[in-house]
Amino acid sequence: MEFIKGIKEKDVLEISDILTGDWFGKEVVLRGFVHTVRDMGEISFVVLRKYEGLVQCVIDSKVKGLEDKTLKEGMTIEVKGIAATEDRAPNGFEVRLTDIRVLSEPAKDSTMPLPISKWKLNTSLETKLSLRPIALRNVRERAIFKIQEGLVRGFRDFMFQNHFTEVRTPKIVAGNAEGGANVFKLEYFGKKAFLAQSPQFYKQTMVGIYDRVFEAAPVFRAEKHNTTRHLNEYTSLDFEMGYIDGFEDIMDMEAAMLTYTFEFLKKEYAKELKLLDVKLPAADNIPAVRFDEAKQLVAEKYDRKIKNPYDLEPEEEILIGKYFKEEHNSDFVFVTHYPSKKRPFYAMDDPADNKFTLSFDLLFKGMEVTTGGQRIHNYEEQVDKMVKRGMDPEEFTNYLMIFKHGMPPHGGLGIGLERLTMKLLDEQNVRETTLFPRDVSRLEP
Amino acid sequence: MEFIKGIKEKDVLEISDILTGDWFGKEVVLRGFVHTVRDMGEISFVVLRKYEGLVQCVIDSKVKGLEDKTLKEGMTIEVKGIAATEDRAPNGFEVRLTDIRVLSEPAKDSTMPLPISKWKLNTSLETKLSLRPIALRNVRERAIFKIQEGLVRGFRDFMFQNHFTEVRTPKIVAGNAEGGANVFKLEYFGKKAFLAQSPQFYKQTMVGIYDRVFEAAPVFRAEKHNTTRHLNEYTSLDFEMGYIDGFEDIMDMEAAMLTYTFEFLKKEYAKELKLLDVKLPAADNIPAVRFDEAKQLVAEKYDRKIKNPYDLEPEEEILIGKYFKEEHNSDFVFVTHYPSKKRPFYAMDDPADNKFTLSFDLLFKGMEVTTGGQRIHNYEEQVDKMVKRGMDPEEFTNYLMIFKHGMPPHGGLGIGLERLTMKLLDEQNVRETTLFPRDVSRLEP
Repeated sequence: MEFIKGIKEKDVLEISDILTGDWFGKEVVLRGFVHTVRDMGEISFVVLRKYEGLVQCVIDSKVKGLEDKTLKEGMTIEVKGIAATEDRAPNGFEVRLTDIRVLSEPAKDSTMPLPISKWKLNTSLETKLSLRPIALRNVRERAIFKIQEGLVRGFRDFMFQNHFTEVRTPKIVAGNAEGGANVFKLEYFGKKAFLAQSPQFYKQTMVGIYDRVFEAAPVFRAEKHNTTRHLNEYTSLDFEMGYIDGFEDIMDMEAAMLTYTFEFLKKEYAKELKLLDVKLPAADNIPAVRFDEAKQLVAEKYDRKIKNPYDLEPEEEILIGKYFKEEHNSDFVFVTHYPSKKRPFYAMDDPADNKFTLSFDLLFKGMEVTTGGQRIHNYEEQVDKMVKRGMDPEEFTNYLMIFKHGMPPHGGLGIGLERLTMKLLDEQNVRETTLFPRDVSRLEP
Repeated sequence: MEFIKGIKEKDVLEISDILTGDWFGKEVVLRGFVHTVRDMGEISFVVLRKYEGLVQCVIDSKVKGLEDKTLKEGMTIEVKGIAATEDRAPNGFEVRLTDIRVLSEPAKDSTMPLPISKWKLNTSLETKLSLRPIALRNVRERAIFKIQEGLVRGFRDFMFQNHFTEVRTPKIVAGNAEGGANVFKLEYFGKKAFLAQSPQFYKQTMVGIYDRVFEAAPVFRAEKHNTTRHLNEYTSLDFEMGYIDGFEDIMDMEAAMLTYTFEFLKKEYAKELKLLDVKLPAADNIPAVRFDEAKQLVAEKYDRKIKNPYDLEPEEEILIGKYFKEEHNSDFVFVTHYPSKKRPFYAMDDPADNKFTLSFDLLFKGMEVTTGGQRIHNYEEQVDKMVKRGMDPEEFTNYLMIFKHGMPPHGGLGIGLERLTMKLLDEQNVRETTLFPRDVSRLEP
């Protein structure tokens, strides 16, 4: 009988092992994809693609293992050879091969449908998305999602440091937290169910248990809009915190989180930031402006008429972003005190003027990336607001239970991860920063 | 205009602040839930519930702020007073109050539906689940999900340390990765869609990009079984790794991950482990036994007939667990080489005998908590196996694309988080370790 004890030592190395410097002049073994093959007559160059980057390998006629094989893009191989510094090679070194072992081969007669070894793919977004599993093999394309990984890691690390508890709330739900028609319906053993538009009810519930909670998980919106900024499934970075003194506490927490996360990216994802030429913005001095004031400011500065005093059009968001970039050199702006009629039933109205709420959006380069605010915590107040909106509190017994038995003053927010990535990378379409986007016409791959 | 700069310093403390020792004899401010109130005549004791635990507060007649209020369970309050060591109090200290400020109140005339301040709730699972938002306020109940948080954190930390990339794959999908009828259907803008039963296709795809990937995310199974171990939505801890030498590499990685994660729990979740009296198992010497051998061993030792040579009944899993506990003192056992007909089309058959696969389950105290194995990586081989199973490769164009253009030898696994937690905590029903379980009859809360 065999016993499994843990990871076995292997002599296969990674790029970072070789970059320690200990391996130059020595024999190394590496595994990776054949990224490119360049035949120069006497010798050829094979570039290996690994998760950390590219490795130039030099092959001459004495190499063993290629007697009955021809190297081809898309093969995976194991190579053995001597590592040597080489300024012109990626990562400053190359490997002069003595042995090659083919680990796997692509389909017979297959040809790469995209020039993935090029610096930029230069294909349409449509083509890139249809061939996503292959397009992501491009070194720049895959760097996008390493940065996205870093955003989530930074968010989580910061949350843990600030004593938030991570929760996992259900995605199949009985009720419709955010209201409206943009909810996916599901047949659930003869009952009507929905896909969660947000973890709203559950994260509030969990504040009654852990004081502060967060979740980074998928949410689902049956939006029929086919725009450059809408997705039907996206990742929401949510947090919810109890014992707040006001909704400013939530904005303070977000500013601190973004500042921490950008520092984290700078430290841990320097390679990818450089590859994509990303400039990290400052988030430690974010202007906060009232919704009505913001509308007024851009109307005056950019000579615009205010059409609807209760809503922000996407064009107005862009102008508010422009205004605060020009006037305060900030890529971010908090727009506060959204009108009550535009916020869900759980939003706390401003006691000073109940046409407005103690809520905010965060705009990043002119696009909403966060919605947040203080929530109602008093049972009677919540029931009243529901009734005034024509909702039946009986349908929300499970949600109202938490207020009935006591909830601290609390609030929170949700950040759209893909939009945050999009604006950070100055992309024009949120699909560029979504691994496998779902939209009205796209369900595959 | 206001500017948001980050978290503002507040004089409100947490339990861990006071436990540093710097605050004894000094004035402290705390916020929390009123957990219990005990009126002793001259003085009363109020226990505050905070995320880190309980705080005993002593009130005498001189306390300010209670002139027109009576403290009640479910209120949230801010208290000010002098911290003092007190051996008989939770965490070894109490606060002698000078001021109380009520932050929020439960509904008028409400009474707690469960004795949440008791050590054990002693109510039926059914009641606990129906009142989950309140039941979780019990200190022991909520400790379960801190340990679950720790399992996920340990898993992720280990994955990052072993150069896995975290990915976020879509949950709304066009195809049915695991086969069978237990898939939720969805109306998607006039198209037929499903909820992902696993991230299988996508995590394999991402191995072509990042070599090693992982995801901790919800999966959905339309299981009609209403058992103590099935859920219709659960969290799957998935990883998938390229360039493996065999499926043993995957078991080695899992054993190392579990060992790391249990150490992590011991370090970071000692309080909760003690509270729930959890004994952490060893995972650094896990027996691995072939499927057919395992059946034989328990048939012999426990005098059982083998009814179906191609399947493991739950009772057999229990006996295999028992066998390896008795014979090798191991809570874990890898059962390897499952029959091909019981494994999905992407499983790699054993070249030595293609009735079996290069796959495994991990049993923990007699229950399957992991399914994994090596996958087919060759395009022609995958198409052949599909055709032999009566599947139409045309329906899997997007999946087959990755093999067509080359994939390294690879494999991976999926761990059921709630089951892992259940067995670790010696619970009898997986719903005990699921925050808001979804089953055939339960869609709320």
